[in-house]
Amino acid sequence: MPLKNDRLLRALQRQPVDVTPVWIMRQAGRYLPEYRATRTKAGNFLTLCKTPELACEVTLQPLTRYPLDAAILFSDILTIPDAMGLGLHFNEGEGPVLTQPLRTKAQIDQLGIPDPNIDLKYVMDAITLIRRELAETVPLIGFAGSPWTLATYMIEGGSTKHFQHTKALLFEQPQLMHNLLHKLAQALVLYLNAQVAAGAQALMLFDTWGGVLTTRDYLEFSLRYLKDILQGLTRHHQGQPIPIILFTKDGSEWLEHLAATGCDAIGLDWKIPIGQARARVGRQVALQGNMDPGILYASPDRIRQEVATILDSFGQGSGHVFNLGHGIHPQVDPEKVAVLINAVHELSAGYHQPFNKLDPQS
Amino acid sequence: MPLKNDRLLRALQRQPVDVTPVWIMRQAGRYLPEYRATRTKAGNFLTLCKTPELACEVTLQPLTRYPLDAAILFSDILTIPDAMGLGLHFNEGEGPVLTQPLRTKAQIDQLGIPDPNIDLKYVMDAITLIRRELAETVPLIGFAGSPWTLATYMIEGGSTKHFQHTKALLFEQPQLMHNLLHKLAQALVLYLNAQVAAGAQALMLFDTWGGVLTTRDYLEFSLRYLKDILQGLTRHHQGQPIPIILFTKDGSEWLEHLAATGCDAIGLDWKIPIGQARARVGRQVALQGNMDPGILYASPDRIRQEVATILDSFGQGSGHVFNLGHGIHPQVDPEKVAVLINAVHELSAGYHQPFNKLDPQS
Repeated sequence: MPLKNDRLLRALQRQPVDVTPVWIMRQAGRYLPEYRATRTKAGNFLTLCKTPELACEVTLQPLTRYPLDAAILFSDILTIPDAMGLGLHFNEGEGPVLTQPLRTKAQIDQLGIPDPNIDLKYVMDAITLIRRELAETVPLIGFAGSPWTLATYMIEGGSTKHFQHTKALLFEQPQLMHNLLHKLAQALVLYLNAQVAAGAQALMLFDTWGGVLTTRDYLEFSLRYLKDILQGLTRHHQGQPIPIILFTKDGSEWLEHLAATGCDAIGLDWKIPIGQARARVGRQVALQGNMDPGILYASPDRIRQEVATILDSFGQGSGHVFNLGHGIHPQVDPEKVAVLINAVHELSAGYHQPFNKLDPQS
Repeated sequence: MPLKNDRLLRALQRQPVDVTPVWIMRQAGRYLPEYRATRTKAGNFLTLCKTPELACEVTLQPLTRYPLDAAILFSDILTIPDAMGLGLHFNEGEGPVLTQPLRTKAQIDQLGIPDPNIDLKYVMDAITLIRRELAETVPLIGFAGSPWTLATYMIEGGSTKHFQHTKALLFEQPQLMHNLLHKLAQALVLYLNAQVAAGAQALMLFDTWGGVLTTRDYLEFSLRYLKDILQGLTRHHQGQPIPIILFTKDGSEWLEHLAATGCDAIGLDWKIPIGQARARVGRQVALQGNMDPGILYASPDRIRQEVATILDSFGQGSGHVFNLGHGIHPQVDPEKVAVLINAVHELSAGYHQPFNKLDPQS
């Protein structure tokens, strides 16, 4: 059965669409009262991630409220370090903690590659369940963290301001850092391919901390492994292409490098106008973004005005997936999200030619 | 009496130097045991800032240890909001708190412009004292926060992750935001000119949070006020030019805009190679930076190697003030700072022509 709404997949491949598709990073999240209720029921964040029925429930919550063009798996990028034995937990009100941070060569040498269908079976079960519940209404996006981003958490043992241990390892023992990143890239290929086999119809790689590196170190320690992963990924499944989005937060200096990896789309933060990004790389890839999440503190009129500005900046034609430039903030009023999504659909029609999905020439 | 070491002032004006000058953001700071001792003696951070003898003592501590080419006033950017009546204090282990955050038009309308020689007399006294103690060995840098950066603290009431109230004000009531920024720019012109009159020999403006804005909003709400300040500043004092450095953290996209403000130098973070920045703007301004602060977790050899890379990236000639791309981290071993400073002086000689300071043709 074909997807009822395939705008996201079409836009990621720069094929014609009727209106610009939109989804929102962290759309299943704390700004929604129904999410907070399910999280309370779960007891803690990790149980929410690890219980397929609950992960499915929160994944679908924003789709019930809003006419979104995609669902994204509810999970966390740290499921991989957890499956590698680093002992993930979340303390209330604080960030994630990995109880066994990596500091020695012996620890890195001993790391095993998780079998996603055993060690991360709960993720695959959630995907299967979500696909069934979605019933081909909109596509489901799977995701993972980049090797570099995961390495920072694994070495520091959690969130960090100064990346002390990570940078010490990078500068002092670059080969050991490469060993870790290579293992993570291998693990991520298996994990993402398993997500596709379970039902993910597009994939996104989150390189949250690539932007703390110099250009030289970004290319060597982050981008290189994004490229390696892209080469290992199944790009088609059951006759359908699986588009892949790369997102390096604070990475707008490196758009040309990201575009040259062979990905289908680049996620943009809100630093540069999307039209400028399109001029730099738009012939190679689609673009996702790039509204300042802070706009959702403004009034409905101001939000619509900003949507219009961004649509106009991208200009005519397909290849744009509307999104915020980073995750939605927990303080946002859910009504504002409805304003944003409706504005994208209403205001974008003029940027697309009328087309007939059944006509292959369209 | 002329300065014994005027490398900093010469490099900021792109005049010949024997070796590349170097200083370090937050060089008087928590990584130094003698700083921690003085801070303990003061009781809290704000007393340290507000007691000229103690501010002078910590300003000079790194100069006693290292052959630095400049001193920088020990103070805090939030002295201005404090002098405007917002009630600054620092809770141990947390960030700054302003007990009277700005949320209404009435509050912004009522804000007065502080008289720096009365309301911030302790800063001017510290400068006078530091200049006397320095005895013309190296120049003293004065500084302030940018209007935009100060506004974020004043509106949020302290540090913030999401800039919720600031962005709501910016997007909903831009004119009110402009009123606040305009007042801050006026206050900063008076404050910085008073610092020069008291003895500051160069000035630096820290735009710590400019990088959380879109390009459009950065130009309208941050850069514009940096320009206004530059037009109001005394650029000469007692026959000496007063060079001005602008630093927008995460602002490497906007170097051309920064260079066009009429400043003397731009501070760079570590995102892009300094040679690339020089190619973009080096005919207009000097550049300060741009080593990743994380390099100081590495070995002496690795630090020297990185210094060599950055010197080589900048290339031949004057116009480079060596520095980290952001403040030094509190965890750094003070011995590593000595390695860095000595490496800059030793390894940079080959990038400068031998010259005679007394020869005006040099």
